[in-house]
Amino acid sequence: MSVPGLPTLRVALLGYGVVGSEVGRLLAVEADDLALRCGANLELTGVAVRHPAGRDFRGVPVTTDPASLIPGADIVVELMGGIDPARELILDAIGHGAAVVTANKALLAQDGPTLYEAADKAGVDLYYEAAVAGAIPIVRAMRESLAGDTVTRVLGIVNGTTNYVLDHMTRDGLPYGEAVRRAQELGYAEADPTADVEGFDAASKAAILASIGFHTRVGIGDVYREGITGVTPEDIATARAGGYVVKPLAVIERVREAGGADSGVIARVHPALVPAAHPLASVREAYNAVFVEAEAAGQLMFYGPGAGGRPTSSAVVGDIVAAARGRVSGHPGPGESKYAALPALGVGRATTRYQLRLKVADRPGVLAGVARLFAEQGISINEVRQRSLDPATAGDGLADLVIITHVATDDALRTTVSRLAELDPVAAVTSVFRVEGL
Amino acid sequence: MSVPGLPTLRVALLGYGVVGSEVGRLLAVEADDLALRCGANLELTGVAVRHPAGRDFRGVPVTTDPASLIPGADIVVELMGGIDPARELILDAIGHGAAVVTANKALLAQDGPTLYEAADKAGVDLYYEAAVAGAIPIVRAMRESLAGDTVTRVLGIVNGTTNYVLDHMTRDGLPYGEAVRRAQELGYAEADPTADVEGFDAASKAAILASIGFHTRVGIGDVYREGITGVTPEDIATARAGGYVVKPLAVIERVREAGGADSGVIARVHPALVPAAHPLASVREAYNAVFVEAEAAGQLMFYGPGAGGRPTSSAVVGDIVAAARGRVSGHPGPGESKYAALPALGVGRATTRYQLRLKVADRPGVLAGVARLFAEQGISINEVRQRSLDPATAGDGLADLVIITHVATDDALRTTVSRLAELDPVAAVTSVFRVEGL
Repeated sequence: MSVPGLPTLRVALLGYGVVGSEVGRLLAVEADDLALRCGANLELTGVAVRHPAGRDFRGVPVTTDPASLIPGADIVVELMGGIDPARELILDAIGHGAAVVTANKALLAQDGPTLYEAADKAGVDLYYEAAVAGAIPIVRAMRESLAGDTVTRVLGIVNGTTNYVLDHMTRDGLPYGEAVRRAQELGYAEADPTADVEGFDAASKAAILASIGFHTRVGIGDVYREGITGVTPEDIATARAGGYVVKPLAVIERVREAGGADSGVIARVHPALVPAAHPLASVREAYNAVFVEAEAAGQLMFYGPGAGGRPTSSAVVGDIVAAARGRVSGHPGPGESKYAALPALGVGRATTRYQLRLKVADRPGVLAGVARLFAEQGISINEVRQRSLDPATAGDGLADLVIITHVATDDALRTTVSRLAELDPVAAVTSVFRVEGL
Repeated sequence: MSVPGLPTLRVALLGYGVVGSEVGRLLAVEADDLALRCGANLELTGVAVRHPAGRDFRGVPVTTDPASLIPGADIVVELMGGIDPARELILDAIGHGAAVVTANKALLAQDGPTLYEAADKAGVDLYYEAAVAGAIPIVRAMRESLAGDTVTRVLGIVNGTTNYVLDHMTRDGLPYGEAVRRAQELGYAEADPTADVEGFDAASKAAILASIGFHTRVGIGDVYREGITGVTPEDIATARAGGYVVKPLAVIERVREAGGADSGVIARVHPALVPAAHPLASVREAYNAVFVEAEAAGQLMFYGPGAGGRPTSSAVVGDIVAAARGRVSGHPGPGESKYAALPALGVGRATTRYQLRLKVADRPGVLAGVARLFAEQGISINEVRQRSLDPATAGDGLADLVIITHVATDDALRTTVSRLAELDPVAAVTSVFRVEGL
């Protein structure tokens, strides 16, 4: 079917997994609506897959050679994932003058500048809404809606798997391994969950958000990263006792000198404590949410499903429509904005609050010694909770000490932690969490 | 200041109130950043105001004749509000080939089609992100990000004043009049709060959201409207007892025949009960939030400040950047999408759940009679709560009966309510609320 009187744009689809097959379905069943929105009929000219046997492609020609679909395509949709051969195929598509839509966060976070430069040079669109937070239109919001504003900080739950795991540890009291197994059973986690639970996936998204939010180039290598594998039920209970929830955060922040000039950006991914009343604290299951602070707009939050075939396909097809509109008008949308060229700073310069949990000797004077170490690093203590531990499980004469600090640099906190570990009455530094969203 | 080597675009600013003056400030202090994002220097060539005396315009030429600023302008920013002369000025700007940025929800909801058609015909941009929900980029999300998807329903808190009033009635137990006075003291409500509390402002926004979400034309006259002036502390307490919060909602929904074909759209604005666990329930103070359901994307929510000079100016300047980019590339962004041409249906066809509160005779058999009237209209009852009323205040032998229904049409519910009012043991139908977000 096609709408008479409209031009036809040729779309090639590289990859036909959970997202790709749903994109193919939407292009077929919504053909007339999409044509009227684009001002052009979208013709899916071919689908490239590795193993076509026994699958239904709705009558669309199939090939195992993705490169063969590129010549003559107006829009190339790359949903294969991975670095190779996705990178070469995208560069080939740009070289042929096609607009590109991709959901490939790993490639963008590693080699984005190469792709952006090729697209800018060729004057074609490169859209990637689906690469960050699935159906949530955060990329367009940052590239376009907030183009008149100055973004100062982004706090995002951008990995649904880790949010699911921490949410069920919190709400069902599951230990970490059990929560991961449940996420795997439900298809929220891979058989090898490393990319999610060690923060690699979130770090890719953080690099992309930092680049577009701060008009600079941040690669995945610039992102500080901690996984959630060390989070224990005791950590979650301790957080709750203080009015916090443990969330898997990507934090992207502008760092300013005392005079107000930008000195750089920091991107970091780690579990963090968030106040229970903060909008991010109530993000459940595998949902994603991105909390943005901008100078004029104030605080904005975007919330929705961060993964899954259907939500991700919504973002991909939205990008296909944008690319098609650009094709019909003859001019592409906004390109890469990198003029600010801010340096990516190490996590040591990051400032936030912290919650430390220590196992200490349960006797007078210990707290004074501990507090002195914080003071020596210029860190103010906001709150202290201490309780004696059960001698049956924790050994005789030990207490659990929870300290929440005021804002301090990561460097100062690290120094304090290493000094604490050497302090005689401190049996162990049980955990250290950043406290965000205050 | 200007960035060398870039072309200059001339911007005229009509209106210099809370938003306009902040837009002027941002154009000045962010000039270099904006130039690099637009690919053009933005030169504010003039500001039109009614009463210039004694005000600071940062050296920008001022006039009391807005029409004089239009010839030669590349981008005209209309922030005067109201229908006249804003409409003629916008049409004049379009006639002169300028792109237009406006925050004028009342004008768009009343005469949008005239403006859209003029802009389409002239091939210029018409942007209006700030007209709905302030800094929240919901207009761009609906026009562009969700362009590949099918929006089925939107639930929005799009009026900050009424959310402030109901939030403080809920959290502080204030009566309606007291909450309105506090909103006035804080500048959240006008001296005459009619446009907010009677739902006119929200209805304008609902008309705009319905038009862009459903690719059709919906005017403010098509929007069913109820204000919040009748909401009492008892209503809020009753809602809370059932696990609900009273929120000022704009509901926009696609109506489908049994076979799945679209039969039309319904837009309605009224206070409604929302489950306490729904994301909209926790929207506090004067914040706005828009909850969108789309077939592929699933459930998305956008949250942020819905009014105020700085947040609104963020949306306006974002639109100026988009218009400038279109100007630099020589081609405008997406125009009006109205191909679906769905009819706006009356509220009678709307289906939702309801909470009714009745004052009834406290004797056996009354509930059976009440329930029979619901059954006659095909309405299933989901939940009933009854409690005897204090004879000292409510009269002897009366009970308070709260009924929550399953889904029913507005028509069926209205018929039931009028029959209930005539039923002998029913002393009064105290309140009727729709229950949304289930």
